Amino acid sequence: MRTLAIVGTGLIGTSIGLAMSRHGTAVHLLDRDASAARTAAALGAGVTDAPAGPVDLAVIAVPPGAVAGVLAQQCARGLARSYTDVASVKALPAREVSGSISDASCYVGGHPMAGRERSGPLAARADLFEGRPWVLTPSSEVAQTALNHVLEPVAQCGAVPLVMDCEGHDRAVALTSHAPHVVASLMAARLEQSPQDALRLVGQGLRDATRIAGGDAHLWADILRSNAEPVARVLREVEKDLATLLIALEELAEDGGPPGPDMRPMVDLLERGVAGLRGIRPAPARRTAGRRPFRVPIDEKPGELSRLLDTIAEHGVGIDDVITGVDAEQDRMTVEFAVPAISAQQLHRLLTERGWQAEDTSVPSQRHRQPSRVDQLWEEEVVQETRAASLPSLP
Amino acid sequence: MRTLAIVGTGLIGTSIGLAMSRHGTAVHLLDRDASAARTAAALGAGVTDAPAGPVDLAVIAVPPGAVAGVLAQQCARGLARSYTDVASVKALPAREVSGSISDASCYVGGHPMAGRERSGPLAARADLFEGRPWVLTPSSEVAQTALNHVLEPVAQCGAVPLVMDCEGHDRAVALTSHAPHVVASLMAARLEQSPQDALRLVGQGLRDATRIAGGDAHLWADILRSNAEPVARVLREVEKDLATLLIALEELAEDGGPPGPDMRPMVDLLERGVAGLRGIRPAPARRTAGRRPFRVPIDEKPGELSRLLDTIAEHGVGIDDVITGVDAEQDRMTVEFAVPAISAQQLHRLLTERGWQAEDTSVPSQRHRQPSRVDQLWEEEVVQETRAASLPSLP
Repeated sequence: MRTLAIVGTGLIGTSIGLAMSRHGTAVHLLDRDASAARTAAALGAGVTDAPAGPVDLAVIAVPPGAVAGVLAQQCARGLARSYTDVASVKALPAREVSGSISDASCYVGGHPMAGRERSGPLAARADLFEGRPWVLTPSSEVAQTALNHVLEPVAQCGAVPLVMDCEGHDRAVALTSHAPHVVASLMAARLEQSPQDALRLVGQGLRDATRIAGGDAHLWADILRSNAEPVARVLREVEKDLATLLIALEELAEDGGPPGPDMRPMVDLLERGVAGLRGIRPAPARRTAGRRPFRVPIDEKPGELSRLLDTIAEHGVGIDDVITGVDAEQDRMTVEFAVPAISAQQLHRLLTERGWQAEDTSVPSQRHRQPSRVDQLWEEEVVQETRAASLPSLP
Repeated sequence: MRTLAIVGTGLIGTSIGLAMSRHGTAVHLLDRDASAARTAAALGAGVTDAPAGPVDLAVIAVPPGAVAGVLAQQCARGLARSYTDVASVKALPAREVSGSISDASCYVGGHPMAGRERSGPLAARADLFEGRPWVLTPSSEVAQTALNHVLEPVAQCGAVPLVMDCEGHDRAVALTSHAPHVVASLMAARLEQSPQDALRLVGQGLRDATRIAGGDAHLWADILRSNAEPVARVLREVEKDLATLLIALEELAEDGGPPGPDMRPMVDLLERGVAGLRGIRPAPARRTAGRRPFRVPIDEKPGELSRLLDTIAEHGVGIDDVITGVDAEQDRMTVEFAVPAISAQQLHRLLTERGWQAEDTSVPSQRHRQPSRVDQLWEEEVVQETRAASLPSLP
């Protein structure tokens, strides 16, 4: 790709400009706000003067509602041979584009799945898209050249192209991005008139839970408008769950009743929440198959367990993968965990060196003993029970 | 403090034990789940054998609903001279305690504002409470000895004691901790039956927004039950905002209508969310008064602006504090920002050395020019406008 035009030098447009300029592509920056374009240029994202002839590809980096209009405008003046956009909604722009330009074969919808709470060119980074999915939604009549023109910046930004249909994409982002933004805003809005002494108690949990609500309000209103139906469908379900929970809470508030049947709605929602998180664990934290279960009896001198935990941590065993128990026969404390099969042997040797008698419970045991609980360890419930049994208190 | 007993060796109890043991206090660990207590002991949090005589202080580290019962039990057997708890709800335990023990003057309610998503003794850390608020809710009849007995571990855990009344505390945590947990669970619950290709699009934003929903479901159900009324009050307001938003979204979904009056409910909620976040910015990010506004004209060669931003970043000026503009008279790009007064002079010198002509706009300008916009920079709106004007696209 030799020449690229970017229309809309906000966070995304400017970041693409920075990445492509580094790859030697001649990038032309356009924005209705001249100082935004000049800011992007001064950052090194490209130049602000118009291209002499049509460029290979124009990236329309404006909000969803503005895509079709800007695209038609630029097609009319022949800005580029191919066009794409980066809007976080795809069905609406696709509909509007097919109505606004004569030949839609030069347009491929796109959505790089990256961003920051800050917006504007100053927040741009050349590495913003590295390793992130970049959704493309080519229509049936799209030209091969156009598709290839779009795939090149995706690759050069270090992103992973992912082809989806518009509706599938819009339902997906409604669930994973747009509805979560609304839910975070609903909570953040409660903090507006909160008393000072309440704010003294704010911790990282609340900050993380509401961080995404910091995005630009008008931009996000346009995103929600453009994806109204899928977002509304998710939020209707949220509303149902909330209504059920509120009924239970207000009954409890009245009679202050003891735990019992009226606890179910709470437990049910909270458990579904825990279950929902399993699917979105960051890859490293995710439990993988093909692990080997270990069982290590330890002496109960202070710090002994910490020493063992540190040792197995070196082999990627987190405390979430560990269960401590007491051997019924020998009344001895045992630590059970699982390690990636690949490092099982090495860890076994290391543990022996450091004075522990590790049992690989996946090989038949030398002596009779109750079946290892670690095989069930993948069942979060076991961990939950263990935790509940130890009656911890949380903030 | 010579002797301490901890009843309930979960995350909080075990963490207190670790911190106090390091300070040479003799810590006795009790838990209805023997293996939890033995796990805590093996980590170095104390010993599992019962104290010979009454200890100075007993920390009841069990869920809110269980505090009064366990406290009465331990008072009856004379475990300690003074008692406290760490439950995240304070009014209910206080009511129940005054009913369950003859002399409530030995009890001081407490709530260390620290925690992790993981629970159980294995998640414990000696530094869990460092720098965190530790709320104490002493009743009118509490004995001075009891108060002092409780203040000592607070100090030795490196926490900041904060005295509140029970109701004030419960309203505060309902807003800053309990309702946010529910809201995060409401969103996380939506992910349970989500299609795989949707999960491929999940980013850090959603992970952070739902992280707190990972806490133990039964424990949190007990917390919500114990603080039902204040939590319900917050969630009712959330429900109202959600209902208003849903009506607007579903109207839009039907007519797909253009931006207009029906956008207001969205913009309103999102803007209130942004406003709500201002109060809970982590201290470092917070803007402080007594800054000196600067204005630097720059040459628009690629990378020049990045070079300036890097330079002022060394003086704690983040991009949120920066506005770029174009000088109307000279058609020259200018960068405006504010620096802590203390380093203003030094930065001015540094900028001059590196070839920039920085103007301190707080001192009368040498030449006529329009008033600096940086004075309004604290008005988030200006930043918002600047961002909206540059038409960025977000994920």
